[in-house]
Amino acid sequence: MDRSLRGRTAIVGVGQTPFYRHGQSPDAETQLTLKAILAACRDAGISPADIDGFSSFSDDRSNGARLASTLGCRELRYSNMVWGGGGGGVAAALANASAAVATGLAECVVVYRGLAQGQFGRLGRGPAKQEVRGESAHTAPYGLMAGAQLFAMKMTRFMKLHDIQHSAMRAVALASYRHAQNNPSAMMYGKPLTEEKYDAARWIVEPFRLYDCCQENDGAGALIVTAAERAKDFPHPPCFLLGAASGAPHRGAARVHNSPDYGGANFSTVAPRLYAMAGVSAADIDVLQCYEHFTGGVVVAMIEHGFCTAEEANDFFTLENFTAPDGRLPLNTSGGNLAEGYTHGISQLVEAVQQIRGASTNQVPGAEISMMVSGSWATPVSNCILGAETTL
Amino acid sequence: MDRSLRGRTAIVGVGQTPFYRHGQSPDAETQLTLKAILAACRDAGISPADIDGFSSFSDDRSNGARLASTLGCRELRYSNMVWGGGGGGVAAALANASAAVATGLAECVVVYRGLAQGQFGRLGRGPAKQEVRGESAHTAPYGLMAGAQLFAMKMTRFMKLHDIQHSAMRAVALASYRHAQNNPSAMMYGKPLTEEKYDAARWIVEPFRLYDCCQENDGAGALIVTAAERAKDFPHPPCFLLGAASGAPHRGAARVHNSPDYGGANFSTVAPRLYAMAGVSAADIDVLQCYEHFTGGVVVAMIEHGFCTAEEANDFFTLENFTAPDGRLPLNTSGGNLAEGYTHGISQLVEAVQQIRGASTNQVPGAEISMMVSGSWATPVSNCILGAETTL
Repeated sequence: MDRSLRGRTAIVGVGQTPFYRHGQSPDAETQLTLKAILAACRDAGISPADIDGFSSFSDDRSNGARLASTLGCRELRYSNMVWGGGGGGVAAALANASAAVATGLAECVVVYRGLAQGQFGRLGRGPAKQEVRGESAHTAPYGLMAGAQLFAMKMTRFMKLHDIQHSAMRAVALASYRHAQNNPSAMMYGKPLTEEKYDAARWIVEPFRLYDCCQENDGAGALIVTAAERAKDFPHPPCFLLGAASGAPHRGAARVHNSPDYGGANFSTVAPRLYAMAGVSAADIDVLQCYEHFTGGVVVAMIEHGFCTAEEANDFFTLENFTAPDGRLPLNTSGGNLAEGYTHGISQLVEAVQQIRGASTNQVPGAEISMMVSGSWATPVSNCILGAETTL
Repeated sequence: MDRSLRGRTAIVGVGQTPFYRHGQSPDAETQLTLKAILAACRDAGISPADIDGFSSFSDDRSNGARLASTLGCRELRYSNMVWGGGGGGVAAALANASAAVATGLAECVVVYRGLAQGQFGRLGRGPAKQEVRGESAHTAPYGLMAGAQLFAMKMTRFMKLHDIQHSAMRAVALASYRHAQNNPSAMMYGKPLTEEKYDAARWIVEPFRLYDCCQENDGAGALIVTAAERAKDFPHPPCFLLGAASGAPHRGAARVHNSPDYGGANFSTVAPRLYAMAGVSAADIDVLQCYEHFTGGVVVAMIEHGFCTAEEANDFFTLENFTAPDGRLPLNTSGGNLAEGYTHGISQLVEAVQQIRGASTNQVPGAEISMMVSGSWATPVSNCILGAETTL
């Protein structure tokens, strides 16, 4: 029996709310989620009553059973979540939705993430004002509380080991801001970033400057997943799942600071599994969305996915290489988490679909294979490859 | 492409901790979980390092990524949870693990639930002493706080509609206690229940008396799931998944008190999907484990699964019918949640496997098709059918 998700499902609808500055959402978190789901249903040309499955991640607070009752779904068949903070679970939630459809557990599953961090405490602030307990109890006494602090240590290690220059991280930030100038939905639309401005910005935690760190937003996004054989019945060009993987290597848990691969982004085993399922290699990828809570994670994750070696990184990571439409590997073409908005990466999965549809604000001409890499250093991390056809 | 889980996976290991009275676990909740997982690994003859996926339910607090690091798993590939309180997600967690294996996302997934409610507040007490918010805000003002209160309303409605007698619920309790007398691990081992003692017990909430309500325990259970083609490589007789379903009908969310099917146990659409996938009917089931936080849920759930009609229930629900080895449909053969112990139903899934192995303390001779029904009135509810062979 074929044990693979390749070509079994397709994304047939996408929807998002606007991005709000943290704490400025006019809606409660679940309302944001519902609005994004309704937008995805409109995009797919379906009624919300047709949804029978719910798949989310990042300890999402909007339980699918409640959403199903609120949306008037005819029947609930699947409701499920990936643990773990940040955006590590974006593609895992897509994989779970696809596995449910591929095994007959559900027919039409929505993948979603709603985030009104202003209503629950700022992510970037860490647990400093809260009780320090659980895993934090091991790291907080050493000053590792917010994400920037935790991951700065790992990035510093990786830079030292491989002689990575700050210019590599700068290229990621510049590409995101460049793309955001063409995306009217982006938080940083109309606010370009220059090399000089990047270099002059204050440290948040070395080696991360201000522009290495993602936005903090309220907002939500949603995608509709169904069986591949139904995909051509929907209004937009279908976007097929060619591969997906998630997890972490041995002792890769996010806050484990004695893991054998300290500094690794956790994709060392996850990336090979993705390519094996999809049957493509890094060289086949037309356009890449790579989750960036911090630019450093993009550098490590892309190396672990074989886009270049660590030794090649200082040369490969340039604004020119990453800029659509003509760069070698257009990266974060909506502006990503740095410059479009941060809803735990769901917006980057939407953008990966838009590229397949030919509908991005920074479209890569003829893009047929679109990839998302989700959540460096998180546990789990995940990734996926989408294609315009299942035969690719 | 065949979209079904039938015969794709098998349960090859089971493990449990002892049941402790709530608050009396010597271990923290995650430690209980780890002990159950280690017991399941020993039972399967594998190293915990071989586990690459984690599947739980009921808002479990033991994140799979942390467990993977603690257990020294070589690689994490899957980590996932079903939202929603109580035991509605037991079989859904098994289905999710199986879907992951069947689609190549993972090879060896542990399904688990650890519960040290004494460390987090008693489930049976409801939110009375806590802040009443969210869904509770709509029901608490009317006195519906603890589970017994919420579900008493639904059971009362069902009993009135269908003229169900208290004797039906009593038969469920008596069968559980009868079976517990043969199970040295059961909390109620050595503490038999008679009809007279049942009838003389105090009301908890009408129509539920003391013995209609489950135990409240600390404890944990775990099951190892792998691909069917590997199942015969393990020490115990394999136990194949023939079918699984989960969800709820239209507006079935647990605390929705204006749902169209008020009183229904939420299996009206979930039961037909289970039988359709498994390709068997109620008449084929050799032995049944049916989750009982309250006996009433068993009555409604079994009717919704077609074991009898509502009109037949007063005759069908008898101790004689439900007692192993010779009853028409042996029910809750470990003692279940009422008399063995309550770890959100994971113990009943373990018992469903033991029956297929021929290893139950109340073995049904020649049992080949074993079923579990999980979580009446919850959202989601779920169910599964296990078989000694995939050809059944």
